[in-house]
Amino acid sequence: MTARVFVSLKSTVLDPQGQTVRAALNGLGYRGISGVRQGKFFDITLAPDVTPEQARRDIETVAHEVLANPVIEEYRIELLD
Amino acid sequence: MTARVFVSLKSTVLDPQGQTVRAALNGLGYRGISGVRQGKFFDITLAPDVTPEQARRDIETVAHEVLANPVIEEYRIELLD
Repeated sequence: MTARVFVSLKSTVLDPQGQTVRAALNGLGYRGISGVRQGKFFDITLAPDVTPEQARRDIETVAHEVLANPVIEEYRIELLD
Repeated sequence: MTARVFVSLKSTVLDPQGQTVRAALNGLGYRGISGVRQGKFFDITLAPDVTPEQARRDIETVAHEVLANPVIEEYRIELLD
């Protein structure tokens, strides 16, 4: 089983990395780009002997406790197969 | 218009960051997690006066030339609205 966890800054939190990318792109001539926000994702593979319920629980805990900082970040989980 | 560009290491390229995350998760007791690969994504907002064709062209160029390193990374574009 594979899961993908997307982690991004909450929309109310400033994203200096994204702003820098936007400024760089504008400077390169891409003036139509008005905003960039950056995030990260994790493709997680689970051992085949893990039950789907256990997998779901583990991924949820891992996303909330380890991969994202719930104070400033939000996350979204996609279970692939 | 908004587009999302996903950038990840090619599957043939070693991902030390992902390996470190996997080792840390295993160490925390999540033994069912057998692999982690990390990637990043960019949410790009385009100015409303950009035509959809121009937007698509710009995003494609930006993804290929700036956001991803085609030697070791691959990218995927999702046009949102």
